[in-house]
Formats: sequence, structure tokens, C-alpha cells
Amino acid sequence: MFTICELGERAQRARVQLAKCETGVKTAALLAVADAIEEHRAEIVAANALDLRAGRENNMSAQLLDRLSLDESRIQGMAKGVRDVAKEEDPVGRVRWGAVRPNGLRIEKVTVPLGVVGIIFEARPNVCSDAAALCVMSGNACILRGGKEAINSNMAIARIMRDALEKAGLPADCVQLVEDTSRESAAQMMALTGLIDVLIPRGGAGLIRAVVENARVPVIETGAGVCHIYVDESADIDMAADIVYNAKTSRPSVCNAAECLLVHKNIAHSALPAIAARLAEKDVEIRGDALTCSILPSAKPATPEDWGMEFGGYILSAAVVEDIDAALEHINRYSTKHSEAIITESYQSSERFLREVDSAAVYVNASTRFTDGGEFGFGAEIGISTQKLHARGPLGLVNLVSEKYIIRGEGQTRC
Amino acid sequence: MFTICELGERAQRARVQLAKCETGVKTAALLAVADAIEEHRAEIVAANALDLRAGRENNMSAQLLDRLSLDESRIQGMAKGVRDVAKEEDPVGRVRWGAVRPNGLRIEKVTVPLGVVGIIFEARPNVCSDAAALCVMSGNACILRGGKEAINSNMAIARIMRDALEKAGLPADCVQLVEDTSRESAAQMMALTGLIDVLIPRGGAGLIRAVVENARVPVIETGAGVCHIYVDESADIDMAADIVYNAKTSRPSVCNAAECLLVHKNIAHSALPAIAARLAEKDVEIRGDALTCSILPSAKPATPEDWGMEFGGYILSAAVVEDIDAALEHINRYSTKHSEAIITESYQSSERFLREVDSAAVYVNASTRFTDGGEFGFGAEIGISTQKLHARGPLGLVNLVSEKYIIRGEGQTRC
Repeated sequence: MFTICELGERAQRARVQLAKCETGVKTAALLAVADAIEEHRAEIVAANALDLRAGRENNMSAQLLDRLSLDESRIQGMAKGVRDVAKEEDPVGRVRWGAVRPNGLRIEKVTVPLGVVGIIFEARPNVCSDAAALCVMSGNACILRGGKEAINSNMAIARIMRDALEKAGLPADCVQLVEDTSRESAAQMMALTGLIDVLIPRGGAGLIRAVVENARVPVIETGAGVCHIYVDESADIDMAADIVYNAKTSRPSVCNAAECLLVHKNIAHSALPAIAARLAEKDVEIRGDALTCSILPSAKPATPEDWGMEFGGYILSAAVVEDIDAALEHINRYSTKHSEAIITESYQSSERFLREVDSAAVYVNASTRFTDGGEFGFGAEIGISTQKLHARGPLGLVNLVSEKYIIRGEGQTRC
Repeated sequence: MFTICELGERAQRARVQLAKCETGVKTAALLAVADAIEEHRAEIVAANALDLRAGRENNMSAQLLDRLSLDESRIQGMAKGVRDVAKEEDPVGRVRWGAVRPNGLRIEKVTVPLGVVGIIFEARPNVCSDAAALCVMSGNACILRGGKEAINSNMAIARIMRDALEKAGLPADCVQLVEDTSRESAAQMMALTGLIDVLIPRGGAGLIRAVVENARVPVIETGAGVCHIYVDESADIDMAADIVYNAKTSRPSVCNAAECLLVHKNIAHSALPAIAARLAEKDVEIRGDALTCSILPSAKPATPEDWGMEFGGYILSAAVVEDIDAALEHINRYSTKHSEAIITESYQSSERFLREVDSAAVYVNASTRFTDGGEFGFGAEIGISTQKLHARGPLGLVNLVSEKYIIRGEGQTRC
């Protein structure tokens, strides 16, 4: 087993080779990876069975066991994901700007790979192949560190991908898995200045916070989503109920699900019961402020911790607000700057909300669940960035690059 | 005197107001700032005199005293700098991408301010007005922390700018100065998660390293420049001598000055003496490897620390290399990824160098000294980014923004 530092050095050597590859080589290698995943599906299922057995022995919840589980159809989904990335346009080598300066210097700004991307993830083993495909296609070597629950699955998938990359003429070290799943290995990745160019955490709020607090290498924060929906005085109540229902219940565990409902006081008496009736279809628990509880007898009183909480399940916090200013203040205080929506028929309210909410995605009359690379038309994504540097929102292939200036002259010197 | 945390909270309130301002308001406010700087020049000169006296008492070097000193013409230069920024195009509110999705959602990606920008600087007091102007024009509140040597000058400049901004209808807290110049105040800024959106260190390698090692808030690294020039086998020797002379001696203290010369072994016997002869005009000390010293009797032997060293003065390290591969290896090992140049008449060498050197700016047959916002045609800059996230190379107004997605619908929900 290599140390994290050795993995970093190997990745740095691999990224130099990978950066020289033409698009066709990367595409062919990824198609070979997809084929290999399908061919070796029995091996993946067997490795996954070890993880599932360990999970059951450790009393893992049914929901987590389901996330961990890989069957034939999920493995085919992984292969398809890799093929989809292979079909996308190469994000490297695009000329984003160019000029001939008065002194004759010819300057171009071109996209280049980031270098070595570290990914710390907690979720499903398919992140392994998804993230590796995006990194390889964007010319980046990657170092993947998953959780211990999925270590056997991840090791099998990584081994299969590495073999396929090598057969296709790329260095196997374009994709490396950290086999040590201790806290120390994550901490070491966070400190690997000079060897990891960017670290992307994919997981719950605790992981994101740990990375942001401790990382010395540059980080792209992803995923923590405390999304708000504000139902304005002028809202169409049926639309509001549909959107809140969709945003809360269509997939409550994901980061673009709604966690908090804010309702203008002048519409609260009609809107809250209508929304609550829809949410009752899925037994959503509402944790409300005093006014909400007075309107909805079924609501439980919210505690201070419920504001800004990512419930990840069938729970929604709710508050009645004085006006749009109070809604904006609440959002700018508790939001993780992921996705927020206003439901309104007022032009003025819609424009104010779009302008003044400081989040990656701001919606008028639509569900927050649309914040997603596929839904935006960008293809596969490695996460949703909630930070302001580099890239915001769905992180696709085009965001996994940096740029450099290349300048051609014939002896120019500066006065 | 406010605590750093209070400064952060005040800046957050100010940025909300500033983000709502139209371009005309920001332009008018900056023009008023420029006028105020000129009107109050006597006040600035008087404050500067206190710093100069303290500097002399502390035996500050003549070079540093010169940097610190503000006279009428330098103050006019500061005012002109602010006016130049006011004339630039507003980087906020540009629509960078848009689409109507098949489900009717209308998505736009628009530029927005970063929020609150922290700037820790060591250099001249004019950084105060330059940085503040760039931040205000890009809609960002800024928290400036200069060195203790310039504290009186910085306080005078900040006070004058704040008064002018307030009279022009912007919150004075758009620009705040940290008056505590202890190490602790810098450390507190680095930890101000949630209140400082981006921290930009402007100064020497020690400052940059401290920020990168310790900051929890997102950072844009700037400035550390260990720039290399590689003289290829096929180089025009006169051109090589001109470019090395220019890159080393035209302003040796800046980050785009050359620090290391690499020469192909087949041209070393003719190129090194020619280059050394030019450098001798400015008494440049050459610290060479064994082969360089055998060719140039005047060269001193380089120590291992000389490779990768930012001399900042009239010293140049020099090595003879086997071939372009050895040059690339040396550069990728010791460079700070700022600016590197190749001098060559070979098409193949030029293309390899451009492709394989992983630096912000890569030159063929031109001086590294051109890496500069003005020289690239970008206008004023807040520094030269040497990192791969967010922005690389000269950081101008257009790099001081983030973006967000705004999405307009009519009730869409996700399947």
C-alpha cells in the first residue's frame, strides 16, 4: 500500500503523460474502461457482496445498504455514465481569448487540465467511476478516497479501471484509490500541497466542513444544500404546493431538495394548509415557527437548530415572514448558497429575489430540484459547487480545467 | 478599533448595498475618491512623513524607504489609477451563458460580485487605493490589511476614500482598513470563514506561504515568481542576451523578473559568455552549476537553495542542461508556475515548451516581464495569480467576480 505522498507523486507523473494525450486517446481509453466494467461485473458484484455483508453485520440502515448495493443494472449504469463522458467535448485546449498586442506579441488564453484532482467521497461506489471518467476526460489524474463501507467495491472498480486505462495506453496512475480509509488518510490528502492541485469533497455537511477547515490545498466545496422556497404574497397557491411538494419529496436525500419553507404572512392562512395537505401525502413532518404552528395544528414547533438544517429526509422547516425583506434576510442568514426559489406572480418580487439572493442557483416559479448538470444541459457532473471561486453550481467537464496564457514573440523586451 | 470579526460583519452589510448599485453610481463614487485623494494630498504626505520618520529610526533600507515614500506625483498616480479603474467596463451583470431548456425553463449564467474580498499586502501604500478601486468597481466590499511600516499612510488614504464613498452615496464600509498590524490580525482574517469570501495576499513568498498554509477562507495566490528562461540549442544568441538582460534587470524586484537561466549544452559555450557580457552592464551576479562556472570564470558556484530562489535583485542562477527534456524537468520542479520563456528558432521546441510548461504565462522569444495586466491589455490588476483555481495570470476586474444561475419558470417540477 502506497503512502498518500507516494500516491501524489505517482499522480503527478501520470498527469504529465495524460496532459499530452489527444482527445481520441482519452475517448478510446474511457470506452475501454466502460467495456471493462461491464465485462468484470461479476467481480464487482462479488466485492460488493463483501461490503454488504460487513454493512449488515454493522447494522447499517436499509437506506444505506441500498445506496451501497451494486447489481447488474447499476453496474450497467456506471458503464453508461463513463461512455456518456467519453462522448462529451474535450474541455482541454480551447482558446478562450486571444489578441495581437501593439508590440506584436501574440497572446492566447487556452484551457489546460487542473493537474491532480483529489476526491473524498462518502456516497455510493459509482462515484468511483463517474469521478474518474470526468477527471480522465479533462486530462486530470485523480486520487479517489471513498468510505470504508464501500472499500471492497471501490477497490474492485479502481483495479478494473486502472487495468483498462493501461491497456489503452494511458498510465494506470491516472486513477488511484486510497486504500487506507482512516481519518488520517483524508487529513493527509488535505495537506498535500504541491501534489494535489484541487480537492473536491463529495458528501455530507460534516465532511465538507472538515475539508474547508483543514485543507491547505485548494478546495471546491460541493454539495451542502439547505435550499429555501419563499412563497410570496402574490403566489399561485396550487403552483406553490406543487413546487414545494416536488422540491421536498421527489428525492429528499439530495442536496437540491428543499429544507425550509418561508411564507408571506398575507397568504399564510390559505397557502400553508394547501401546501401541508400535499406534503401529508408523503407524511412530511413540518417544523414550524409559532405562526405556522398556529395555522397548522399538525406542525411541530421548530427548534433554533432546525433553521439552516439539512434534514435529508421527509422533514421541512417552515416560517411565516413579514415580507420579502424578511424572507431575503432569513435566506441570506441560513442558506448554504446552493439553490433557492420564490413562488410569485409579482414581477418586482421576482426580480428582487433573483438579484438579492446570493446562491448558486436562484429560481422563480420552479423547483430547486433542477440544479443538476443534466437538467441544465451540461452532461455529467462531479458535484454542485456552493463556493464563489472558480465555479458555481453544477461542476461538469468544462469546470475541471484551468487556463494558461501562451505568448509568441520574436524577441520583444519590455521598456 | 473594531475587531476583525466586526470588520467582517460590517463589510457583509456593505456588500449587500454595494451589490445593488448601478454602474454609474460606482463610477461616480470612484471619480469622487480620485478627486478626494488629490484634494487631500497634503494630509497623505503628512501621514506618510510619520511612516518615513519611523522607517528611518528603524534603519529601513533606502530601497524600502523609496517604496514607502509618497510625493505629489505618486499621489497623482494613485488618483489616476482610481480614475482608470472607474473607466473600465463593469464586470458585474454580464450574461455569460443562457439557454431555454426543453421543459421551458429559461436559464442564464450571470456574473455577480464575490462579496467581501480581504487583501493582505506588504508593499507600497498605493496598493490601498488600487485594490479598493478594483473591489468597489467589481461590487465587492474590501478589508485591507497593510504592513505596520505604512500604517499612517494607509490610515490617511483609507479615511479619505471612505469619506468620499459615503458622500457619493455608497456605504463607507465598502472599504475598511485593519488598523491592527499584528500577526494576529492577519491570522484572524485567514480564519474569517463566512465573512471573507476571498483572501488575496499581495507580497513576498513568506506572506503567500503563510496564507496558503493557514487560511480557511478561499485564497487566490499571487505574486511569488521564480521565472525561468531556457535558451534552446537553436536560439538566436543576440535575442537570448537581450531577453535575459531585460527579464533580469529591467526591474529585478518584481515577480515577473527572471531568476534562473537554463542553456542547452550545445550552445552554452557561445551563449553563456554573450549573455554574461550583457548582464555585466548591471553587475548581475551569476550563480552557476559546475558547467556554467567552467565556461564563465566570473560565475559563483550555485548552492542547492539557489534553484527555485526568488532573488528579487541583481542575481541570476544559471545551469547548462542536456536537452529540452532536462530544461522542462528543471522548470516543472523549481518554478512557481508564474512565467517562463524559451528562446528558440525551432518550431518543435517552441510548441513542446508552450504545451508542457505548466505556468500561468509561457513565452516563446519574449521577455517574462510582459506578464502584467496592462501589457496584456486588461487594465489595472490586483496581482498575478499563480494558482490554477478561479483565475490564472493577471487578475483584473473581470476576475473579481463569481457567477450565479438565474432560472425563470412557470411552475416546473422535476420528474
